[in-house]
Amino acid sequence: MHHYPRPLTKLINELSKLPGIGGKTAQRLAFHILSMNDDEVFAFANALTAAKRELKYCSVCGNLTDTDPCAICGDASRDRTAICVVETPRDVAAVERMKEYKGLYHVLHGAISPMDGIGPEDINLKQLIIRLREEDRVKEVILATNPNIEGEATAMYAAKLIKPSGIKVSRIAHGVPVGGDLDYTDEVTLSKAIEGRREL
Amino acid sequence: MHHYPRPLTKLINELSKLPGIGGKTAQRLAFHILSMNDDEVFAFANALTAAKRELKYCSVCGNLTDTDPCAICGDASRDRTAICVVETPRDVAAVERMKEYKGLYHVLHGAISPMDGIGPEDINLKQLIIRLREEDRVKEVILATNPNIEGEATAMYAAKLIKPSGIKVSRIAHGVPVGGDLDYTDEVTLSKAIEGRREL
Repeated sequence: MHHYPRPLTKLINELSKLPGIGGKTAQRLAFHILSMNDDEVFAFANALTAAKRELKYCSVCGNLTDTDPCAICGDASRDRTAICVVETPRDVAAVERMKEYKGLYHVLHGAISPMDGIGPEDINLKQLIIRLREEDRVKEVILATNPNIEGEATAMYAAKLIKPSGIKVSRIAHGVPVGGDLDYTDEVTLSKAIEGRREL
Repeated sequence: MHHYPRPLTKLINELSKLPGIGGKTAQRLAFHILSMNDDEVFAFANALTAAKRELKYCSVCGNLTDTDPCAICGDASRDRTAICVVETPRDVAAVERMKEYKGLYHVLHGAISPMDGIGPEDINLKQLIIRLREEDRVKEVILATNPNIEGEATAMYAAKLIKPSGIKVSRIAHGVPVGGDLDYTDEVTLSKAIEGRREL
């Protein structure tokens, strides 16, 4: 389709594979990249491979990290009596941006969704139960999964699993807009939601 | 600002430098890249550096190429009596997509724009005059610069330079929408524009 030399066609093809990047945008980006100097292109290419190579999931909480345990799990100043359960590393970043919550996290890497064939065993939930059993300082688990059907189902399921242990289980309040995405919620709303959490 | 591990922050920063990619989009793209497998990320990074390393400008026509001369200049089947003058390599691709024009090209890499301090000596115009002097088979120069103020000014200036040589000089017809961008013109309009070209 493109009447471009092969290396350019290849670059355009790679860019078009990114979500939300169509053919015209990929062309525009490719030409921008060609206009960058060698060092800039090298830094970009390097950032891609370095991110892929250096990032892993924290063996404790499942958050994205370049150290193990992650910076939050390894931070002695964090409150080890609370664990905030979220679906993705982006949600950890969203709660952290609020600068109010000082406890730990647990990242599920998804939510229960029978429609998509995702059951409780397909998310990082068993690891949370093991963690609660081994870490006896935890007094509260805050379920901050997304306020949509899958997130609610996941919270209900997790609450049922945790309750027998006697640990307090809470769900963030519906200050976060129903059907919305935690990662797109502004700091104030998110703050209100955590403040108004109710025990399950 | 981001509460992400350094390699991820770096990748998001690199992606945000691209034109039209804001912070939220950069985050979305970065997480997509992390979800790609190692080979895919390597192929992407490689396409970036390979494009930058292997692509140069054809020493004859100025088009983007990975060989010198470029595939078009080196193609014995092309009509060497006609040269189509365009502003950018993207415009060469636009005319080629039409699959009608069989002559050669000359890429100016810009247009005369006194407002932006770009004069005739700042674009690849002198090389065109030298080329016409050395290549005595050329019978027609088709000026296909963009149909906007800068493109028109450039066409007028080039026509004045070429006319004394006795070579026919033509301008693509205003089938292309005035104020528009050649690269965004559909094949039919572009085809009509070349067909209806008038001698200057």
